[in-house]
Amino acid sequence: MGRRSAGLTEGVEPHIVDDLSAFKLAFRRHAAGVAIVTGRTPDGAPVGFTATSLASLAAVPPLATFNMARISTAWPAVEGPHPSGSEHVIIHLLGARNRALAERLAGPHGERFTGDHWAPGPLELPLLKGVPAWMLGRVVERVPVADNAVVVVQIEDGGLGADDAPLLYHERSYQAPGGPLS
Amino acid sequence: MGRRSAGLTEGVEPHIVDDLSAFKLAFRRHAAGVAIVTGRTPDGAPVGFTATSLASLAAVPPLATFNMARISTAWPAVEGPHPSGSEHVIIHLLGARNRALAERLAGPHGERFTGDHWAPGPLELPLLKGVPAWMLGRVVERVPVADNAVVVVQIEDGGLGADDAPLLYHERSYQAPGGPLS
Repeated sequence: MGRRSAGLTEGVEPHIVDDLSAFKLAFRRHAAGVAIVTGRTPDGAPVGFTATSLASLAAVPPLATFNMARISTAWPAVEGPHPSGSEHVIIHLLGARNRALAERLAGPHGERFTGDHWAPGPLELPLLKGVPAWMLGRVVERVPVADNAVVVVQIEDGGLGADDAPLLYHERSYQAPGGPLS
Repeated sequence: MGRRSAGLTEGVEPHIVDDLSAFKLAFRRHAAGVAIVTGRTPDGAPVGFTATSLASLAAVPPLATFNMARISTAWPAVEGPHPSGSEHVIIHLLGARNRALAERLAGPHGERFTGDHWAPGPLELPLLKGVPAWMLGRVVERVPVADNAVVVVQIEDGGLGADDAPLLYHERSYQAPGGPLS
């Protein structure tokens, strides 16, 4: 499993012998925009995480997707209808000036919401300050796959901050685009 | 629907009044890595498209996701088990040198596989030449949402070509990262 005859790709490209290496080596050559997803657990605690999987799915209706681990502290905010009724998250699109924010929301859980870098926003959800753009999304699908989940949200609202170059993650470092290719 | 009281975000950020504008304006500030997904329709025709939605979902097992329209000419290659038995696609990670390839696979369908920029690869799937990395993925989930679908693939194999800066799409132009932020 996870192995094909090397002969299949002979003469085309060097071959990677196992599935995990193929995955890791390929994604090392990928670059992704950086977002932060925030929400509230059923007991009201602010939770969130830095995500490199945000993608648009459709414009009409406006739909987006992101991926997450179901062991994430933020999963209870996304998992399903709660007595509190919230099925919403805020997705923040980060700019180059937001690198510290990306690092903080990928760091120790106890420190992610300690400070004045956020305030309650729409539906009392944690709204991070100083980002170029954010969207309020209603969770419309959760697709568990292994220990993870694909989450589909329908965008209902949003706001813009000062413009900025988008923050990228590539080769384990934060970067920004270098401008249009000539 | 798609509207919240403007009062909710007062004093935080300018407000966007409708859901579609919120979605479009936010994603305009996003940057994404560029990939090309290829496959074969049940009758054997090569199909493929340029995607800016590729994301990793898990490392063990190695899983990735991408989004597509179900009206895409490539949908029959992904849609479900065929008599031909193929449920695989090849995902190519593009480099800055592959911009013409990205444009071709986003252009007129009749011209996407006309030329010698590809050859049959693993499982006879179309393998594009000269890309930094590619992965063979078995389709394990298809999640229809509105006219679109989220596709989950398990990576089974792959290959590497010459290294390159990853190709990005931002503000309707192809770009490359500008290097680590200082």
